[in-house]
Amino acid sequence: MSLDGFIAGEQSGVDELFGWYGNGEVAVPTAVQHLTFQVSPASADHLRPAFAGAIGALICGRRVFDETNGWGGTHPVGCPVFVVSHSVPDDKHGAFFFTDPLEALSAARKEAGDRDIAVATPSITQQFLDAGELDAIVVSLVPVLLGRGIRFFDNLATTPIRLSDPKVTEGHGVTHLTFQIM
Amino acid sequence: MSLDGFIAGEQSGVDELFGWYGNGEVAVPTAVQHLTFQVSPASADHLRPAFAGAIGALICGRRVFDETNGWGGTHPVGCPVFVVSHSVPDDKHGAFFFTDPLEALSAARKEAGDRDIAVATPSITQQFLDAGELDAIVVSLVPVLLGRGIRFFDNLATTPIRLSDPKVTEGHGVTHLTFQIM
Repeated sequence: MSLDGFIAGEQSGVDELFGWYGNGEVAVPTAVQHLTFQVSPASADHLRPAFAGAIGALICGRRVFDETNGWGGTHPVGCPVFVVSHSVPDDKHGAFFFTDPLEALSAARKEAGDRDIAVATPSITQQFLDAGELDAIVVSLVPVLLGRGIRFFDNLATTPIRLSDPKVTEGHGVTHLTFQIM
Repeated sequence: MSLDGFIAGEQSGVDELFGWYGNGEVAVPTAVQHLTFQVSPASADHLRPAFAGAIGALICGRRVFDETNGWGGTHPVGCPVFVVSHSVPDDKHGAFFFTDPLEALSAARKEAGDRDIAVATPSITQQFLDAGELDAIVVSLVPVLLGRGIRFFDNLATTPIRLSDPKVTEGHGVTHLTFQIM
């Protein structure tokens, strides 16, 4: 997320927001062959659990699924993908599709068991926040002002939402902030 | 600033955003008699320079000037106040008034000399960012989602604006992030 709250720019913002995935000396392998991140030591410590099996299911929206072409069938964290969408594409790339985000969550819970469920899309994050279904928010804060784009936090119905002080991990080109929801 | 980017709530947001000024065991005296903050040790280290003469001039907008009743003539940091406003109130409380923010900045520079100039209002911060007049951004990030209110960063014309990795100070109920503008 940029300092002004955007997780995607008006164009794409990928260069600005994701540059830290390739700006360091520590390799973090992923579930995708030939995709290895190169990050700072602190960011590697932050990322490694997610890419070593800590995440049992990932929930996302249709925009990111289409933009990544369904991650070619394998998400980098190596877990099943649950997509919230009003329609089902011809090629589901092995993902599971739901129109209701809470039904997607229920299916993801069965899949994940004791492992974490990650939510990768702002609009779904917002709905789960309003429904009280999230335990934590992880923000990888990038030191840039983008001015416009897609906001991480928008359209929240039930505010204020109080969080814990964050666990802070100071990477290079990014500061990771993990908040527990109170 | 709340995690979703607001420096004031729709109502006031004062309880949520400024609670950390009174939630700790370390006293930080101000230039105002009978106004002493009580903050965590880390926040005290972060705040103390500003309340010990580091700031030579403060620029703000009319909303905060009116809401604070011109700080009763003495801003807590103890420096002259330069207000950007289309009109001049009957009681200026010793402040200086300008319609042009860059003229206010010029006058503040003469007053401050080698000391820092603080900017206390989002719309003026935005104009100075666009004009390339700022050296640093200090965000005191409060772990709350407010949902609506006045954004710190909005209406930026010349983006992206790249910043340094922040100096991080972990207070209680607040995380202070100081970014240099590249």
